[in-house]
Amino acid sequence: MPQIEVGILGATGAVGQRFIELLTAHPWFNVTWLGASERSAGKAFRDATAWRLPAALPDDVARLVVEQAAPGNAPKVVFSGLDSSVAGDIEKAFADAGHLVISNAKNYRMDETVPLMIPEINAEHLTLLDRQQAAHGWKGRIVTNPNCSVIALTLALAPLRQFGLKSVMVTTLQAISGAGYPGVASWDILGNIIPYIGGGEEEKVETETKKILGCLSGNRVEPHPIVISAQTTRVGVQNGHTGSISVGFEHAPDAGAILDAWRTFKGRPQELDLPSAPPNPIVYLTEQNRPQPALDANRDNGMTVTIGRLRPCPVLDFKFIALGHNTIRGAAGVAILNAELMHREGLL
Amino acid sequence: MPQIEVGILGATGAVGQRFIELLTAHPWFNVTWLGASERSAGKAFRDATAWRLPAALPDDVARLVVEQAAPGNAPKVVFSGLDSSVAGDIEKAFADAGHLVISNAKNYRMDETVPLMIPEINAEHLTLLDRQQAAHGWKGRIVTNPNCSVIALTLALAPLRQFGLKSVMVTTLQAISGAGYPGVASWDILGNIIPYIGGGEEEKVETETKKILGCLSGNRVEPHPIVISAQTTRVGVQNGHTGSISVGFEHAPDAGAILDAWRTFKGRPQELDLPSAPPNPIVYLTEQNRPQPALDANRDNGMTVTIGRLRPCPVLDFKFIALGHNTIRGAAGVAILNAELMHREGLL
Amino acid sequence: MPQIEVGILGATGAVGQRFIELLTAHPWFNVTWLGASERSAGKAFRDATAWRLPAALPDDVARLVVEQAAPGNAPKVVFSGLDSSVAGDIEKAFADAGHLVISNAKNYRMDETVPLMIPEINAEHLTLLDRQQAAHGWKGRIVTNPNCSVIALTLALAPLRQFGLKSVMVTTLQAISGAGYPGVASWDILGNIIPYIGGGEEEKVETETKKILGCLSGNRVEPHPIVISAQTTRVGVQNGHTGSISVGFEHAPDAGAILDAWRTFKGRPQELDLPSAPPNPIVYLTEQNRPQPALDANRDNGMTVTIGRLRPCPVLDFKFIALGHNTIRGAAGVAILNAELMHREGLL
Amino acid sequence: MPQIEVGILGATGAVGQRFIELLTAHPWFNVTWLGASERSAGKAFRDATAWRLPAALPDDVARLVVEQAAPGNAPKVVFSGLDSSVAGDIEKAFADAGHLVISNAKNYRMDETVPLMIPEINAEHLTLLDRQQAAHGWKGRIVTNPNCSVIALTLALAPLRQFGLKSVMVTTLQAISGAGYPGVASWDILGNIIPYIGGGEEEKVETETKKILGCLSGNRVEPHPIVISAQTTRVGVQNGHTGSISVGFEHAPDAGAILDAWRTFKGRPQELDLPSAPPNPIVYLTEQNRPQPALDANRDNGMTVTIGRLRPCPVLDFKFIALGHNTIRGAAGVAILNAELMHREGLL
Repeated sequence: MPQIEVGILGATGAVGQRFIELLTAHPWFNVTWLGASERSAGKAFRDATAWRLPAALPDDVARLVVEQAAPGNAPKVVFSGLDSSVAGDIEKAFADAGHLVISNAKNYRMDETVPLMIPEINAEHLTLLDRQQAAHGWKGRIVTNPNCSVIALTLALAPLRQFGLKSVMVTTLQAISGAGYPGVASWDILGNIIPYIGGGEEEKVETETKKILGCLSGNRVEPHPIVISAQTTRVGVQNGHTGSISVGFEHAPDAGAILDAWRTFKGRPQELDLPSAPPNPIVYLTEQNRPQPALDANRDNGMTVTIGRLRPCPVLDFKFIALGHNTIRGAAGVAILNAELMHREGLL
Repeated sequence: MPQIEVGILGATGAVGQRFIELLTAHPWFNVTWLGASERSAGKAFRDATAWRLPAALPDDVARLVVEQAAPGNAPKVVFSGLDSSVAGDIEKAFADAGHLVISNAKNYRMDETVPLMIPEINAEHLTLLDRQQAAHGWKGRIVTNPNCSVIALTLALAPLRQFGLKSVMVTTLQAISGAGYPGVASWDILGNIIPYIGGGEEEKVETETKKILGCLSGNRVEPHPIVISAQTTRVGVQNGHTGSISVGFEHAPDAGAILDAWRTFKGRPQELDLPSAPPNPIVYLTEQNRPQPALDANRDNGMTVTIGRLRPCPVLDFKFIALGHNTIRGAAGVAILNAELMHREGLL
Repeated sequence: MPQIEVGILGATGAVGQRFIELLTAHPWFNVTWLGASERSAGKAFRDATAWRLPAALPDDVARLVVEQAAPGNAPKVVFSGLDSSVAGDIEKAFADAGHLVISNAKNYRMDETVPLMIPEINAEHLTLLDRQQAAHGWKGRIVTNPNCSVIALTLALAPLRQFGLKSVMVTTLQAISGAGYPGVASWDILGNIIPYIGGGEEEKVETETKKILGCLSGNRVEPHPIVISAQTTRVGVQNGHTGSISVGFEHAPDAGAILDAWRTFKGRPQELDLPSAPPNPIVYLTEQNRPQPALDANRDNGMTVTIGRLRPCPVLDFKFIALGHNTIRGAAGVAILNAELMHREGLL
Repeated sequence: MPQIEVGILGATGAVGQRFIELLTAHPWFNVTWLGASERSAGKAFRDATAWRLPAALPDDVARLVVEQAAPGNAPKVVFSGLDSSVAGDIEKAFADAGHLVISNAKNYRMDETVPLMIPEINAEHLTLLDRQQAAHGWKGRIVTNPNCSVIALTLALAPLRQFGLKSVMVTTLQAISGAGYPGVASWDILGNIIPYIGGGEEEKVETETKKILGCLSGNRVEPHPIVISAQTTRVGVQNGHTGSISVGFEHAPDAGAILDAWRTFKGRPQELDLPSAPPNPIVYLTEQNRPQPALDANRDNGMTVTIGRLRPCPVLDFKFIALGHNTIRGAAGVAILNAELMHREGLL
């Protein structure tokens, strides 16, 4: 069984901790290096940060001494959970130095030589890497995954491309863990809703979705022509971003065809039986009041997107609810799935 | 100063308690009669139910002996906060017996001789009453207000009718008080979202809005032709229903014209300076993260709808957020405003 | 591997669902029978109730047809998650008919021939069963576990009996799942605290604890002489009852001796390596802000009680915080542990 | 009507905003000066911070230009809502310069020449001021109020001093607003409890209570000899600290005598009919599930402490629940009451 050493950039943060949790007992990857800010460097991980997940912090990771987030002696493969305020420079430094950076940060997502991956949807976008090194002068590479608010929507839309996606409207109800730690103040969100998420959240939904759903055309990704309108809100939920979605088609199918498309949808991760791949990336729930974050976000270790309530939309064609775990399927989990895919495709 | 005796049907329920609170110290109306189920009848109100609002229960109401919800010695004007499972028969009995029922229940809202009122929008719909008694053979009358999920949307749309409302999509994030008491189980909603509200909530949004915005035409209301699509969800908020709204127009105005339309909007309640009328039914908030239920739902004693985040919508024309207090502006408060309007129009 | 058929009384309720979840894939017990109210009888379990736990409902249980809660063709061993309003008669009927009832209900807990068990503490109380059948004229038997609010406190105290427990004060902060379903209305608990729990919760803490900690003396349990004062409150937490505890001793030890007593505490379930036994019934957490229900209640599948913040108490001797999962360690899980113990002791 | 100009130190913080809210339309005090950190200085208050209270920010305060927190042209009387990390130096600078600082910060509370006031309890402690200027060499003075967790407990105990207070145990369930803004991360508290509050919260309860209840003896305060044990926890409540309290007496009265003592308790603020004084500082609620923060914290504009559930305690003598609004009665409101008292006593 291959044991591939990996590092984690931004190890003390919300996504960093989720990387550690998900890589505990991973069959292929072994966390041997943790990078964080100067403030944490030099301390045992256990002392550098408070562990904030219910699952126990594994002892071997707890004892790792955190290093500064610079290439040096980091392993070749590093996962990045860095905040976007620092990810630009640090990830570039790692790519320059020959590392493969599998990043959850937004900084390079829209770079036209950087794959923006949900591997069930666009595994073939990895071919963008062919021209990345030349374009940037890097010895290494960067691969990214989308913003957490994008995942459930995009996975729900991908199987429907066959019907001619024309337009989509989504209102998201996003969990507080999506804002990292300390993130949202309890003063602001207890018993409340905040109808705004900073950092260009709505723009990310509108641009990233189009790139992920786009076609490769001569080594470039042609963004999908779908018109997208997003309203993103914050709600008092710990984990799980919900989307209230309406979609319009060029050739509107009937509801049965949509359900079939979702139920039969699989991608490269399922073909290759990757360790983190759920059996079905999408599960449709027939109860009229589902999906719900508290009940459904953790399905299949948080890697399955659940959908429910498909019904006609008087304005567009159909409406439905979709839900995904924002720090697993929407961040650390999908990044690990990207790494697993690259390993099996011989790209590590 | 006129002192008009009024009764409250369903006095022990969530909306009934709000009626009591809002009528305490009302300049015109004096609560002298409380009707509820057999289980409560014969008890002092204080002993018939637990008072569940932060404002203190007034002593004089606390001492009233609850009567069964039947005409008998009730005052001529009764407010109804009855549950729809019983409102149909009971309100009919009161109308038969010559009472004016100002009702929050859904049972008669879509009856074509019953006004469905937001008095700033459609005060003239009261003329439907002219043919109500003949049509039903009642000695009294019934006037209704819309479902709590409808109010913020409909008030936001009303001033925009001049631009040719074509289509609207709304996702609501509704407070738990909208489900009455005991209503939503904490097991279901703590740290969660329920993407479904029973009792035909989405249909109500789609049908009631069209009636309220409709034009009188020869003593009938012609429903507004706008196409409406609603997704209604329940969130862990005590009071205040939020709507994430997109709207399409026949003749799309610019954003400034929409803001002007909202800011200058007033109706009969403002003209008549009714006691429960807010100075402006709509207030636009310029902060980018507003309105929020915890901060804005109680504005002007819960009678003002707040709107924010107006911006272009890539799919329809504009999108924005609107918020209203569901048990005040969306239930007891608007019913009282209806009664005040009728008093000043000589219809009590 | 033995496969023992078991039934569940009150299968549709909050504790009943937890029994089903915990018995899925149990190495010894196989759920073949579900009993519930008349309303549910005759329906497939899937249709008889909404499944309200995040873990998926196993298909084989989903298909079981619910029967009325009467002996008839139920297996010999039945777990009871019945509400106390009906448990008295139904459990008696099962005991009369020769069944072994392993019950979470309060009705027979204080019966002097019924063991009230936390098996790490008082496994020897099973000898009460010797005279139970004669005393009641039953062909079968009843074994009980304590109220969910009692478990963390009693497990924390048990290892300290050696120091002469004199008095204890506890304020509990109890999760809403302890009230069953629908249980606590969200209207009452969202952003709130209810400083009262009905049904004699505080008395249960004071009486059950003394019985569990009591000594067998000539086939009777002599209640422990400790003086107990409890204040029980409800908080907006899904799972996990927290206790803020102060304890006074006859011979006050130093803190180190208390920590040692907790850390080395094991009981018959650990000796016998029972399937549901956690490695250590008590785990002391050294972080100054733990235990916390959201992070610690699920430790070791919810069977471990976590303790923290041991420090001197100016009024009694020491104070600390203890936490246990109320529907697992405090209800279904401890009942299953009781059954496992009885199986290994040859008492099934 | 006297118009006394006052300033607010720490105006942008959680307590600072509450000062502004409570002083809007105050009959005696007029806010003309706001001091905050360098980052805010020079901006209109409206632009210096986000207003986070439901009540509207008054326009005249919104337009005030924030100044640096230094004496200069501040009015003679300043309220301080400063964080303790900076309050020590800044308040000293104001006292040096001749200002009267009415402070909510902890820094000078235990100074033996500084009154620590709940004016219904210890108005006479103002005589400590007689030797404050000489002791410190200040031209001005400092008066303080206690920590927010202390107020409900201490008000509940004060009327019981006549029975010989011997010992008290309290577990607090404290609202998140007590931690200021941004304060507690939602990640930490949503659906959770944190059984620890930093900054020496439990020590404050134990020491401040003894000083407030203490007797003046020759120009010094002799701390009350009561033995106090506190466990302080954080819960997901917006406003209102609840205490679960047991108390032991030298000469235990019966319950009726305790209720009488609470119901008849009044102090100098009531005698002088101060603008912010509630009619009764303590109100006993007879419902068995009260007080509750969501229903009772705002009673009498947040200035009344509510108590409930008085009953015997098996360990000490009596137990009960007490609740107070932490940022009003426990911070800004009590500070304003201190200022009102000093004005009427001729000490401004």
